[in-house]
Amino acid sequence: MERTICAACFLLVLLLSCHAAVATNGRWPPPTLATHYSSSLSSAARQVMAAGGSEHAPPSVVQYETRWYTQRLDHFNVAPASYGTFQQRYLVNDTFWGGKNAPIFLYAGNEGDVELFANNTGFMWEVAPRFGAMLVFVEHRYYGASMPFGSAKAAFKDASTKGYLTTTQAIADLATLVLSLKANLSAPAAPVLAFGGSYGGMLAAWMRLKYPHIVMGAVASSAPILSFYGLADPYAFYDAVTKDFKSESENCYDVLRRSWDELDKALATDAGRAELNRKFKMCDGKVETIPDLLDTAVIYGAMMDYPTSSGFLTPLPAYPVRLMCRAMDDNPTSSSGAGDVLSRVREALNVYYNHTGAAACFGAAEDDDPYGMFSGWNWQARTEMVLMTAAVRDGGVLPFNLTELLDEGRNYTGLPPRPFWIETEFGGFVSVVFDLVTKLGRMWFLPHACAHHVDLRFSNKDDPDWLKQVRRKETRIIARWLSQYYSDEGISA
Amino acid sequence: MERTICAACFLLVLLLSCHAAVATNGRWPPPTLATHYSSSLSSAARQVMAAGGSEHAPPSVVQYETRWYTQRLDHFNVAPASYGTFQQRYLVNDTFWGGKNAPIFLYAGNEGDVELFANNTGFMWEVAPRFGAMLVFVEHRYYGASMPFGSAKAAFKDASTKGYLTTTQAIADLATLVLSLKANLSAPAAPVLAFGGSYGGMLAAWMRLKYPHIVMGAVASSAPILSFYGLADPYAFYDAVTKDFKSESENCYDVLRRSWDELDKALATDAGRAELNRKFKMCDGKVETIPDLLDTAVIYGAMMDYPTSSGFLTPLPAYPVRLMCRAMDDNPTSSSGAGDVLSRVREALNVYYNHTGAAACFGAAEDDDPYGMFSGWNWQARTEMVLMTAAVRDGGVLPFNLTELLDEGRNYTGLPPRPFWIETEFGGFVSVVFDLVTKLGRMWFLPHACAHHVDLRFSNKDDPDWLKQVRRKETRIIARWLSQYYSDEGISA
Repeated sequence: MERTICAACFLLVLLLSCHAAVATNGRWPPPTLATHYSSSLSSAARQVMAAGGSEHAPPSVVQYETRWYTQRLDHFNVAPASYGTFQQRYLVNDTFWGGKNAPIFLYAGNEGDVELFANNTGFMWEVAPRFGAMLVFVEHRYYGASMPFGSAKAAFKDASTKGYLTTTQAIADLATLVLSLKANLSAPAAPVLAFGGSYGGMLAAWMRLKYPHIVMGAVASSAPILSFYGLADPYAFYDAVTKDFKSESENCYDVLRRSWDELDKALATDAGRAELNRKFKMCDGKVETIPDLLDTAVIYGAMMDYPTSSGFLTPLPAYPVRLMCRAMDDNPTSSSGAGDVLSRVREALNVYYNHTGAAACFGAAEDDDPYGMFSGWNWQARTEMVLMTAAVRDGGVLPFNLTELLDEGRNYTGLPPRPFWIETEFGGFVSVVFDLVTKLGRMWFLPHACAHHVDLRFSNKDDPDWLKQVRRKETRIIARWLSQYYSDEGISA
Repeated sequence: MERTICAACFLLVLLLSCHAAVATNGRWPPPTLATHYSSSLSSAARQVMAAGGSEHAPPSVVQYETRWYTQRLDHFNVAPASYGTFQQRYLVNDTFWGGKNAPIFLYAGNEGDVELFANNTGFMWEVAPRFGAMLVFVEHRYYGASMPFGSAKAAFKDASTKGYLTTTQAIADLATLVLSLKANLSAPAAPVLAFGGSYGGMLAAWMRLKYPHIVMGAVASSAPILSFYGLADPYAFYDAVTKDFKSESENCYDVLRRSWDELDKALATDAGRAELNRKFKMCDGKVETIPDLLDTAVIYGAMMDYPTSSGFLTPLPAYPVRLMCRAMDDNPTSSSGAGDVLSRVREALNVYYNHTGAAACFGAAEDDDPYGMFSGWNWQARTEMVLMTAAVRDGGVLPFNLTELLDEGRNYTGLPPRPFWIETEFGGFVSVVFDLVTKLGRMWFLPHACAHHVDLRFSNKDDPDWLKQVRRKETRIIARWLSQYYSDEGISA
């Protein structure tokens, strides 16, 4: 299989690593999930999705107050420009809070509108009453409504305005906001526990690493903190995705493996493009975007291979990988050859992009970026967050090539990427995982779970037993940390 | 006693806190040690002092190679300007080094020419052979020869160019330099131990806190990491200095306590100024600088109250506090009154400023800032390093007043000081000292020693037993850390 494949995403799988990944396959601009929404998907439907899915709107427990914090532009520099400020959004629910010694659960906002993450991090909502916890979801700078320089347009004007978009600044934002919040609550002893999934999980883990005096623990789910050059196998991401599809059926794996060549071949001739036009109902007739559509469906299908239907980023059925494979396995069109492969691909795309049946055609989104992710992440992925997730082992189509990866970044930003910076700042495997887990004690990395930070989602009656057990274990660990904290401090919640 | 006094400097005493301290007493520009050098002190004598003292030039073991590292201007921002570089100086001695698994002892350069610290940190030179350690002394950005923008003039041009002078950038400099050095040595497993005294000690401790994956331990001597608002008693610094003088004699304490009023009174009238002119041989006739001379002599005398004669910053005899007190106690001029107090003050100044007998008069330095400290530290002390060391309890002349302290900083830099930033970034007492010492294990703060980072100086046959014991204990602790490291890593030196 050439490009594909998640049976055990553990630490290495990250939603947004995919942007970086696909960016290196030679197609520009980088294919992204949102660009493939069908045009027939209404704005209303998007609203529903932002709220957690058309079928699974967040339970009524998701209630919060929107607040704003006046945040410093640059924490680590004292030039006059660094004293600039912007309004950082954060969402607060204090209905469960037990008072000044009770815990604060802090969600480290990812690369997108923070409401999306508040709505899709059910685990925090579900455990808050048990722990008497206040919930605080902080939006990451340069995403959602938390824009320096007054607007997204001004924030992303040029490399100088974008220069303040770094992970270290984002973590320092969390530190200053938390201390201010606690001061305003007159709750200096309230234990703060950081949560995050994916990139947010990386931030939560690094927050614990760099600010142990501010967060007493971190739950980092699907946080690829080791996916950097020299730390990770660059093929591991696609290997995991491949394994996911292969575990459904050999045929599924085989069809996908062959599909890239078939698509390239068809796109190379007028006759081939005509055939693609007949087989795939493209909203805008741009058949050349079909490989990107497939790439996205495969990667995100694996990452969001949740055991229940979901609406995180796009509406999907339960177990989308299984359904995509079944659609490809069961497709009756002819017995072999290009036509067959392409029809099967179309069926897979139909599962991924048209699960609700509302889409009349593929591609041509109304809104390229409904959650405000791409401007920021495309910059981060090419400056500091140079994740090693782009390479595909099998077939050699995308062998690992650091030089090309860096060249691509440099071409995009006009600046040299910093592939070693994250490791310099936050450390590699031994120190981050081993040293912290053993010495600081209070970190927890989800060690296995097929789909991307599935443990942080709302529970569901259809959840498999392993997932229920993971959530119970996480809850027990949190209880232990808090108990230890109160004992150490000689106070009670 | 109004302004004065160090019997147990432990964590709270810092050489450069004094800049901040004296800056708030209403006299501008801040009196500094170097401005009080006698004009008769030759350049040649200064050279000797920079090398560790006129009488105690550094032993011949102090041999190093000067190297340069191309350092990034801003580690935490990715705007084009941040990619600017400068040449950072560092000094290396590898004659004792035992090879790729042997330790690297890293001195975190203070606010001044790094050669001064290399020459005055004898402890590292003395223990290096035992541990087979490479010695690396890194100069702090914006000091000595490590100037961004090509020159000191360009570096200190305005607030924008000075904006990159922060502790977090300085620590990140150490991190990147060390990783580069180890890569070039092909010594990824070599354990790195950070050392530092005073501000350098703070950097060493914070380095261990923020980069535990890079430095496996830190020896932080006389590092006032807790001297910030809300963490420290603002009167503690002067209280300690006061105690030092009082422990020599009650009369010494009493004379100093009365001297400030006597000086102010004399300076207020023509007759008084004439008397001061007769009693004190001022090089430039500026008698109004006498209080500053005394302030400096009292503070630095206490901080450099070493048990042997020394040449760190200025040539001093052994136990200068005792000698100053004796000079004041034994002064025979009249029995009481202003004249008496002023003559006694003159004798004390003579001990401090003219120990060698080479000075013909007081004040009027040839070079205000022989070690290149003031431009940088005056900026740091008023932006981030807002140390709580200015207030004097007894007599209420300088009661603690945060508003005034901040106003003064704002007036000086044109920017609001950030008195809470260091605590936000590095934590307060519980986390930094307790949590780190107990959980990370590998930090060591000198708990007591009368004079400023005296433990890091070269040993001397006249050293008192307690000092010999402290150094032996530090050596044992380092040995234990290294042994633990090699055991953890499964390697040997």
